[in-house]
Amino acid sequence: MPAYSVVVDVMLKPEILDPAGQAVANALPALGLGPTSSLRIGKHVEISLEADDEAGALAMATSMAQVLLANPVIEDFSVRLA
Amino acid sequence: MPAYSVVVDVMLKPEILDPAGQAVANALPALGLGPTSSLRIGKHVEISLEADDEAGALAMATSMAQVLLANPVIEDFSVRLA
Repeated sequence: MPAYSVVVDVMLKPEILDPAGQAVANALPALGLGPTSSLRIGKHVEISLEADDEAGALAMATSMAQVLLANPVIEDFSVRLA
Repeated sequence: MPAYSVVVDVMLKPEILDPAGQAVANALPALGLGPTSSLRIGKHVEISLEADDEAGALAMATSMAQVLLANPVIEDFSVRLA
């Protein structure tokens, strides 16, 4: 089967507070950068896997995100080919 | 100034061990998923900022990544417009 590179991005839902992102946003002006109106930090997961086709690779990565990579209570995720 | 959404993805360099990614990769078969030939976990940072143009927004985000978001000793980053 051909190999595919799939990317899963996992972000806290917009209504969930992101203290790490807030800390970074607050630190930027002291470094001469920013300001930003929003800065949120999530997870970026790069997966190499074998599948029959692109749709199969995306479906497999989506299952991984639903089962293990994301917490559906507080996180959203997106899946795409790299 | 117009607002831009910029994404910074920060990943451990390929030669750096990623124990979190390895743990996830090892857990997938027991959940009926995978196997994967590689699974690595990094940071996905979504930034909203104001800049004169797209090049300015990307330059600002690149500065943020160099100064604060990424550790250049062990991490690489990529910057793109969302």
